[in-house]
This record gives sequence, C-alpha cells and structure tokens, in this order.
Amino acid sequence: MPPFNPLVDKLVPPPIPSVFAWAKSYDGRHGPLIDLSQAVPGYPVHPEMLKLLGEFAASAAYTGYGPIEGEAEFRQAYAAHACEVYGAPIGSANIHITAGCNQAFVCAAMTVAGPGDAVLMTNPYYFNQETTLAMLGIKSRFAACDPAAGFLPDPAALAAAITPDVRALAIVSPNNPTGAVYPADLMEEIFELCKGRGIWLILDETYRDFLPEGVGQPHGLFAKDGWEDTLIGLYSFSKSFCIPGHRLGAITAGPQVVSQVAKIMDNLQICAPRAPQAAVAKALPRLAAWRQENRREIALRAETLRLTMARVTKWKLGAVGAYFAFVRHPFDRRDSTEVAEALARDAGVLCVPGAYFGEGQEAYLRFAFANADAQTIRMLSGRLSRF
Amino acid sequence: MPPFNPLVDKLVPPPIPSVFAWAKSYDGRHGPLIDLSQAVPGYPVHPEMLKLLGEFAASAAYTGYGPIEGEAEFRQAYAAHACEVYGAPIGSANIHITAGCNQAFVCAAMTVAGPGDAVLMTNPYYFNQETTLAMLGIKSRFAACDPAAGFLPDPAALAAAITPDVRALAIVSPNNPTGAVYPADLMEEIFELCKGRGIWLILDETYRDFLPEGVGQPHGLFAKDGWEDTLIGLYSFSKSFCIPGHRLGAITAGPQVVSQVAKIMDNLQICAPRAPQAAVAKALPRLAAWRQENRREIALRAETLRLTMARVTKWKLGAVGAYFAFVRHPFDRRDSTEVAEALARDAGVLCVPGAYFGEGQEAYLRFAFANADAQTIRMLSGRLSRF
Repeated sequence: MPPFNPLVDKLVPPPIPSVFAWAKSYDGRHGPLIDLSQAVPGYPVHPEMLKLLGEFAASAAYTGYGPIEGEAEFRQAYAAHACEVYGAPIGSANIHITAGCNQAFVCAAMTVAGPGDAVLMTNPYYFNQETTLAMLGIKSRFAACDPAAGFLPDPAALAAAITPDVRALAIVSPNNPTGAVYPADLMEEIFELCKGRGIWLILDETYRDFLPEGVGQPHGLFAKDGWEDTLIGLYSFSKSFCIPGHRLGAITAGPQVVSQVAKIMDNLQICAPRAPQAAVAKALPRLAAWRQENRREIALRAETLRLTMARVTKWKLGAVGAYFAFVRHPFDRRDSTEVAEALARDAGVLCVPGAYFGEGQEAYLRFAFANADAQTIRMLSGRLSRF
Repeated sequence: MPPFNPLVDKLVPPPIPSVFAWAKSYDGRHGPLIDLSQAVPGYPVHPEMLKLLGEFAASAAYTGYGPIEGEAEFRQAYAAHACEVYGAPIGSANIHITAGCNQAFVCAAMTVAGPGDAVLMTNPYYFNQETTLAMLGIKSRFAACDPAAGFLPDPAALAAAITPDVRALAIVSPNNPTGAVYPADLMEEIFELCKGRGIWLILDETYRDFLPEGVGQPHGLFAKDGWEDTLIGLYSFSKSFCIPGHRLGAITAGPQVVSQVAKIMDNLQICAPRAPQAAVAKALPRLAAWRQENRREIALRAETLRLTMARVTKWKLGAVGAYFAFVRHPFDRRDSTEVAEALARDAGVLCVPGAYFGEGQEAYLRFAFANADAQTIRMLSGRLSRF
C-alpha cells in the first residue's frame, strides 16, 4: 500500500468515539449512565425548529446549489442577530456560513496560516482545533492557562508565546474544555495584543448563548474601529438550536476575510447545506424566548454543579462556565484517561479526559454538564464520592 | 491588516459565480438564456425524494451528532448499490460519507498527500480539484489529454509525468470538463500503472449514473484483488438525485483509508448532514427506476447535442459524454473566457471557458448539456451559427 500523508497518519483517532466505547463497559449498577462527554444539550429540540427544518428540506427551492457564502436571508438574519448580541454594526457582508463551527475554524485557520506557519492556542485547547492545525501542516504554539487563575489566559504569557511564525491567536470563550468565561476587559487586552503584534485573533464563541443572563454583551470587540483587520469570530448553531446533525456554523469577519473563506469553502464543499440555513433564518427571531429559557436552564445546571461538587471532597472544580466544567480528580498518580475510563465503567459517569486537551492536563476531566438536567447533576455527588 | 495565507490569497475567486455574472448581460433577444454552466440536472427532483428529505429533517432522531463515517444504514445502502454497479464485493466498511464530492476529494487528497507532495492530474482538469491541491500546499502535476484521442488520457504520458514526489493520480470519468468516458480497459491500464508505481489512484465518478445504458459496469477495478491498496473512489449524490443543496458524497476505499478519512472529516465537520443521509438511504433503492429514466433522458440529450453540433459548422465537439461536452469554438485568436462572456451576452448561451480547466484549453468551452432538455439543446444551432 502506498504511504498515507504522515500529517494525517500520525493524528490520533477522533477522541469522542473512543470515549463512547467506555460507556459500554458500565453495567448500570448505580442507575442510568450520566453522559457528560460530547457537548449536546440535554433538552429536546424545539418543535418549531423541526417543523421549519422539515418544511425547507421538502422544498424543491433548496435542492440546487446555493451561494457559497450562505443563503442571503440567513446571512442577513444572523448579521441582525449579531448586531444585537454585540451592540455592533455587523452586516451581511461580514458573515460567511459554514457547515458547523469545526469547519469555520478550518476556514479561519487556512485563511491566515499555511503549512509551516504557526497558530498560537491556549493550553488546554479544544482538541479538534489542534488536530486541524496539525493535519494542515500548521504548527501549534501554546500558552498555558493557570488553574489558579481559573484557566483564564494571561496576556503576558500569550505575548511571550507569539513567535515570529505565529500568524494568529486562537481562543475559545466561553472556553472548551474549561468553561472559563473570558471577561470583556481581558478580551479587549488580548485583541489589542494581537493588533499590536500584527496577528489575527480567531475567537470561537460556540457557547456564547449559554452565558448567564444579565452579564451584558460578551465583549465589545466587534464594535471597535478597524476590528475587521484583526478579528475573525466563529459561532455554531448546533448547540443553541440543538441541531448539530444539521451542521451549521458562521464566521463573522471583514469582507476581505469573507472573500478568502469563500475560496476555501468552494473547494471544501461549495456551500453549507441549504435547507437548514433557510430554517434557522426563520428560527433565529422566532425561538429567541426559547433560547433565553435554555440560557436560564443551563445557568441553573452550572449552579447545581457548583453546589454538588462542593459536597464531593477531594474532587475540585478547576473552572466552570457556560457549558463545561474542568474538574480536578483526586488521583494524583493516575492519568486522566485511566480515571475517565474507570469512572465510566465503575461509576457510570462519562466524561472526556483532560489529557485530550493538552499536555499537563492529566489531573483534569471535562464535564459537559449542560448535557444533564439538574436532578442528574445532583447524582454526581454519590457517584463520585463512592468511586 | 495581517497577511493572508498566500496559498489561499493567490487562488482566483470561485469561477462559477463569475460565469453567472455574465448571464446578467444578456438582454433576452434570442429567447430565454440557455444555461450550460454549472452542472445541475435540468429536470426536477423526484417528489418522493423531497418527501423523504422533509420527513427525516423534521425528525428529532437526526438532530444530534452522527457517526463520523456516515449513518450506518446509509453506508450499508450505498455499499449494496456499489456492489451492483461494479459487480464487486464492497461493504459498509469501504464507505465514508462526505458532504458532497468536493469534500470527498479534499479528504482523499489529504489522506495521501501533504504539503510539498504532488498529485498528478489530467489537463484539462476539474478546477476545484486543482484549487483544492493548491490551497493545501500540494503540488499539481499534469498529463495532457490529446484532443485527437477524444481527450482520453494516454497511459504513457501519465507514466512519464509521475515524478518522485507524486503520491497519487487523480482522474475523473465520465470526465469533467470534457465528458470523455474512459473505457474499462484504459481504466485497468491506469490502475496497473498506479499500482506498479506505488501511487494511489483517486477516481472521481460523480457522473457515473449518466453513462449510457447497456455499456455494463463502468470498470472492473473494485473487483480486483487488492484494489484497496491502490484505489480511492469518489461519488456524488448531488447529480443523480438532483440534490446538490443537501451536500452528500461518498468515498469508496479500503478500511484503512476510511480510518484516515474519518480523522480528516472529524476536523472538517464532524459528520455529513444526517437527515439527507437517512433520506437517500431510502431513495437509493426506491428511485432506481427514476434514475434509469434520467439516464435515458441524458443519453437523448447527448445524442441531440451531437446532431445539433453537426449542423453548426466551424464549432467542433472535442468530446461529449455522460454530462458534459468540450466544444472547440471557431475563434482561433480569442481566448475562451472572452468568447464565453460574449456568448452569454450576445447569444444567451452560458457555459464555462476552457481556460478555467487548464493551460492550453483556451480554444474550448465546457457545455454542461445535461442541464438542458433536448428542445433547448436544438436551439443551440441557431444561437451558435448567428454568433
């Protein structure tokens, strides 16, 4: 057999299926499996969303190829929504629709970095971003996030890690895996750092809609003069609308970035699936109240997790935020992968090992707590204490 | 503004939108525009297909993430279909579902070649394959197809073009842009060449279902012992089912290739959209008779084009096949881009310039004749003669 591309060959297999495999070893002795692994909201999709998806998928109008950048109506609807969220003048020309936020990251990374260039990430990081860079031949640089600072990045550490080959800094807020929510002033400081150093800032806000109520705008970056020369925002419709299987994401950036992304998307898949775009264009305004309810529900789950974990001595919450918690397990000498596998098998709690998110994260586990309702989250105290 | 990735920055903008723009300059003086540009079958999607798409999109069962490799039922259904088409033992484990065939090519190319490696293509080539390689930092090598040989590739020319950095040969049959259908024995010769030289053969058969009836299997490559060590087959559901907007394609390859592709797909978009997979799994057997009718209809259109072009002196059919014709225009001193633009404006015939498909193709235009019914195709003689 001829050789494979070594950049792909040496990637580890996708981590989530390997985590799912551990679930099968649990015999149910403590009750149903508590699945805190892959991020999928543990409440049902809205019936109106399903109705819209069904209607547009059944329409001949969306069977043909669509605009590469996305359906005009959807770009318009999302731009209007983004204006509200950020209090900033974002227009259709700033939006490129993608088939999910992983693809948005692929497009953003390729837009700004080629093989041999580097992208700076935090450690811990979202694993698909690291493997995406690796398979493209783009180097990853890392700036460690201090657990003592709640895993918030330190601008000085970021600045020190910007080697001359770094073309962009990629950050995620609310963070995956830690859940840390980067405060607006920290975001501003990071933006100014990138601007000053002449690198792009790729900001993944997949979990933006699960920020607690009343904290105001996530940040003011899209309202800054000249933001389009520094910032590339990423977003996913998967989590907020509970429709990851329909694959929709968005890039918010300057029109020149959008033009570059269009060239990449044309090669990757011509356009994102059209019927879901038409459906979510309608759902964006219609399901606003429902999304607010979910925001409150997820905040309740986060609070429940805080209270629950406070009762489990030895286990520590390293960080907790919009969707995820990064939890320190009490087994100093055991690697997170071993602990997570045993936790699935013996306690019926499925989560992702810290080691999957970067070197030095072996003491942690990622809990996608938003997957589980408050009652289920409360069951964690018993399961973890007995483990 | 920080720099863009030069590999992406220097790509020309996606060609199809620029072609569409020419259509706007036509004032309708000869009747409706004849659109032979982007490949989209000019007959409606089947109502049963729309019904299935609508049903599955409206189902909560397909809102979550799905298996990276594709829905189990769809992989099974497509494998069974491929067994029939090729008379070969193809199983589920040989199938990886993608979001369209462009994405299948991206995955296949990345599986076998990294930055600095090369992939050998024919000239002319399908432009998205060339730009895909370019944006990934993979070099393209070319072997010219002789117009005198109906644009069939010459194995000796291919062999001579396999430089040491070539990791794969990428071919398309039925060909885009020329329409040339590669005979089974030529395919076999090309396969043996690749096998002997230790490189992969990436075979894009997007237009396979439009081969004329009664020619038997397209080729015997999937029935050869050890095919999995050489061959990677690509296919698109877009054309055969008239659903490009739903984005579905497939890779047929050895399980080891499928494992590599899964790592790439996980990064690119986790999984192809799920509801359309479930819908096409049902449609594959149900719409078999309808696809046969379409095959006959497209063959009729090809025959109509042959007869029509025979009446247009000066214009010559370089090749014509399942879906496309590569037509030599009579203006020796004018580039195909200039001719195509004028043809849209002055004759109301929209097609893609040969120059988009490779150096030295300036004398040709690609007619996606399958887009137009026989009656419309007959109108070409008047439009071209007067032009």
